[in-house]
Amino acid sequence: MESIINVLIEEPELQSPILIEGLPGVGNVGKLAADHLLEQLGGVKFAEIFSRHFPPQVVLDEDGVVSLVNNELYYVRNVGRGVDVIFLIGDHQGLTPEGQFDLARNIVDMAKDMGVSRIYTLGGYGIGKMVEEVRVLGAVTHLSMKEDLQSHGVLFSPGEPGAGIVGASGLIVGLAQNAGIEAACLMGETSGYFVDPKGAEALCRVLASILGVEIDFSDLEAKAQQIDVIASKIKEMEGSQSGGREDLGYIG
Amino acid sequence: MESIINVLIEEPELQSPILIEGLPGVGNVGKLAADHLLEQLGGVKFAEIFSRHFPPQVVLDEDGVVSLVNNELYYVRNVGRGVDVIFLIGDHQGLTPEGQFDLARNIVDMAKDMGVSRIYTLGGYGIGKMVEEVRVLGAVTHLSMKEDLQSHGVLFSPGEPGAGIVGASGLIVGLAQNAGIEAACLMGETSGYFVDPKGAEALCRVLASILGVEIDFSDLEAKAQQIDVIASKIKEMEGSQSGGREDLGYIG
Amino acid sequence: MESIINVLIEEPELQSPILIEGLPGVGNVGKLAADHLLEQLGGVKFAEIFSRHFPPQVVLDEDGVVSLVNNELYYVRNVGRGVDVIFLIGDHQGLTPEGQFDLARNIVDMAKDMGVSRIYTLGGYGIGKMVEEVRVLGAVTHLSMKEDLQSHGVLFSPGEPGAGIVGASGLIVGLAQNAGIEAACLMGETSGYFVDPKGAEALCRVLASILGVEIDFSDLEAKAQQIDVIASKIKEMEGSQSGGREDLGYIG
Amino acid sequence: MESIINVLIEEPELQSPILIEGLPGVGNVGKLAADHLLEQLGGVKFAEIFSRHFPPQVVLDEDGVVSLVNNELYYVRNVGRGVDVIFLIGDHQGLTPEGQFDLARNIVDMAKDMGVSRIYTLGGYGIGKMVEEVRVLGAVTHLSMKEDLQSHGVLFSPGEPGAGIVGASGLIVGLAQNAGIEAACLMGETSGYFVDPKGAEALCRVLASILGVEIDFSDLEAKAQQIDVIASKIKEMEGSQSGGREDLGYIG
Repeated sequence: MESIINVLIEEPELQSPILIEGLPGVGNVGKLAADHLLEQLGGVKFAEIFSRHFPPQVVLDEDGVVSLVNNELYYVRNVGRGVDVIFLIGDHQGLTPEGQFDLARNIVDMAKDMGVSRIYTLGGYGIGKMVEEVRVLGAVTHLSMKEDLQSHGVLFSPGEPGAGIVGASGLIVGLAQNAGIEAACLMGETSGYFVDPKGAEALCRVLASILGVEIDFSDLEAKAQQIDVIASKIKEMEGSQSGGREDLGYIG
Repeated sequence: MESIINVLIEEPELQSPILIEGLPGVGNVGKLAADHLLEQLGGVKFAEIFSRHFPPQVVLDEDGVVSLVNNELYYVRNVGRGVDVIFLIGDHQGLTPEGQFDLARNIVDMAKDMGVSRIYTLGGYGIGKMVEEVRVLGAVTHLSMKEDLQSHGVLFSPGEPGAGIVGASGLIVGLAQNAGIEAACLMGETSGYFVDPKGAEALCRVLASILGVEIDFSDLEAKAQQIDVIASKIKEMEGSQSGGREDLGYIG
Repeated sequence: MESIINVLIEEPELQSPILIEGLPGVGNVGKLAADHLLEQLGGVKFAEIFSRHFPPQVVLDEDGVVSLVNNELYYVRNVGRGVDVIFLIGDHQGLTPEGQFDLARNIVDMAKDMGVSRIYTLGGYGIGKMVEEVRVLGAVTHLSMKEDLQSHGVLFSPGEPGAGIVGASGLIVGLAQNAGIEAACLMGETSGYFVDPKGAEALCRVLASILGVEIDFSDLEAKAQQIDVIASKIKEMEGSQSGGREDLGYIG
Repeated sequence: MESIINVLIEEPELQSPILIEGLPGVGNVGKLAADHLLEQLGGVKFAEIFSRHFPPQVVLDEDGVVSLVNNELYYVRNVGRGVDVIFLIGDHQGLTPEGQFDLARNIVDMAKDMGVSRIYTLGGYGIGKMVEEVRVLGAVTHLSMKEDLQSHGVLFSPGEPGAGIVGASGLIVGLAQNAGIEAACLMGETSGYFVDPKGAEALCRVLASILGVEIDFSDLEAKAQQIDVIASKIKEMEGSQSGGREDLGYIG
């Protein structure tokens, strides 16, 4: 029995498409960003990926109809300046390191088969404290990609993230490099304490610039403001606990 | 070496059979129900499933004769309104998520080969408190199945179970959906604290209605009454500990 | 890459040989017994079994020469009443349930290929208290084997061991049953607290009777007496701690 | 999908090369030694090994360019007395026992294909206390190798290391023995508390003698002196804490 089952709903003809991956991770930043962008652009689901490496589980919709835990592929044609885009989204990564590796290989194999010209994997960069001004950090498979990404607001900061990139976002970029596909991991800064729409918004702005599309951020901004409110309240509580000290640097 | 070994004792010719799965799980509700129904209907064992994914163990009968841990398939012909029924029973699920997935795929592959027309997987829905009136909740692969199940007393409650369905009962339904087989998971409500014959009885009543058979519930009812006695005693103890307070809602 | 590597040093022609398994387990009773019997009978190593399922390790002899962790097969021709015997010994079982299953299947496959007529797996039956009179309990693949084993001193006690038989000794017997090979698991009673030569001696006496051979037990008896001394000292200590109480039943 | 991917950059023709392995382990002694020797001799990378058994991760260089976690093979021609040398280096061993076994088999298979005449695996021998005079202990696949190694300063000490050799250094030697390749594990003594350049230097001196090359140790010596300083400070602290006691044997 194979460990991964790709169910193709449709085999779309796409022109050197871009693949954007957004699966759960630190602050769920990558997943939020990919889901938001896909919703804004409107995509067509063309494949489902099932695997023994996902949690052994079905989820239920409001009607009580089941879906086996999976990852899904969508396509959108002719985005912004005319590029075709594929989205890889889902509620789970592989449960084990071995499973994550196999799932990433499966995606890169599919990308190669579909003539994908570039991959963007999305993730969060957890810094363990509240973030005022969200940076979007980058990592690339080829040095030649940096200048273009910098022009869209991506920061390359030597030594960040120091621990490398773990999980699907890292593996897909690494395996794409081996397969000769240009790929970049874009990481929205986040405290890592909350599901973080602010980090996701920053990621989406970079992607909108890359793709040349207008994106409505009102949804993410509303959620981001809620996070700001929560953060302020935490600051107040910390402030009153420490007798009104000025120095709140460690959470700001 | 294959990871699952299907040993066929017999290859019965069955007419679009229904498959009923009842393996251990929350409150053992699904297993108790399937075992009781099979005992009442009288079945013939036709296959044993062995696997590296089960506990590495033999069990002994009273004579000291061993049996390797397994799952078993039984058939019963011409049940109630004339349907052939297959039972999947056993004392264990797979030990790992990967093993559970492979075992569920193996069953759905067998079901497809045998022309199974519908699958019912049985489970418990643990609510973490004593249950007075046991509901039987449902989840389906196809929306079109709901009305019929509701007519037999199955409840579809949006958002329940919120965490989806984990393990064999979920996976078999999910993989059946992918394979184009109609399937439903029926879940008997249970506290989840005990092995729960009350939840099993409720499940059996729904299945008896679906199959159009008369079932003797005296066994399960006797066991269920014992549980009621235990529950009453717990209430009393809780009552005396809290100085006779009226509010026992959290266990009732 | 296959997960198990059988390295054959020799392919001996054997007449319907008996296979005796003795790997580490409860009180190391089975391993001690098989090692002692093999040493007494004098065997020839004819195969080594290596696997990714064993600890990832080499051991060193006194000269600093390494051996990769393995299981080994020895043969002895024309034992006692004229039977050929194969021994499966080693310092490790598989690290995981899946590994144990695969290793047991590999042995049963080899046994089938070599025309093995009967398998005895040896183990300890841990009862959690000191044992005065060591019983040897049995479990069999075929009811017809019991009478003969009882005549050699094997006890069949309904409900013992209640938890079944876990690991290599259980799996080999269970898989032999599926493969149509007669097999019995013989379990020497042991506290389970110590490596237990007393349980091993009891096992060896049964096997000597089955094979019709004279065995020198002085080695095992010397070790067993040491255990008796240790047990007596523990009794004394317990006695003085509890103010000289008579009731020492829980360790005797 | 295969579990290990060997990416060949080049297929060098080498004359009965020696393979030297230095992966992370106790005190990182083996890795430090192999890295230092490779740096001194100057090698050419000719293969990368990727696997689902490594951590699921990419690392970043100072430019933000990713590399998938891997092991790497380098070659150096005509070293010292004229031997070709292959180095196996990397930042990770396999995550699981099964993965370690498969990775070691893959290396020994490659070694066999390339006509490797001898393998040296490098490791640390952790003794749990500070080491004054670092010994280099050896373990071999063939007794005939000992005399030569002793002439280069390798010590064979019966019963050391008592627990055998775990991980890549052990498995590669053990599997080489099975494949008929002469192999030795060289272990530099280390406290095991720190990354230990002193143990690495001792290993390098032995290897320099074996290969007949001059090695500059200034780097390792500088690092080793830092460790000595740290060790002295710990001694002082321990001394003052214990009221200036003379007996510091347990850390010296």
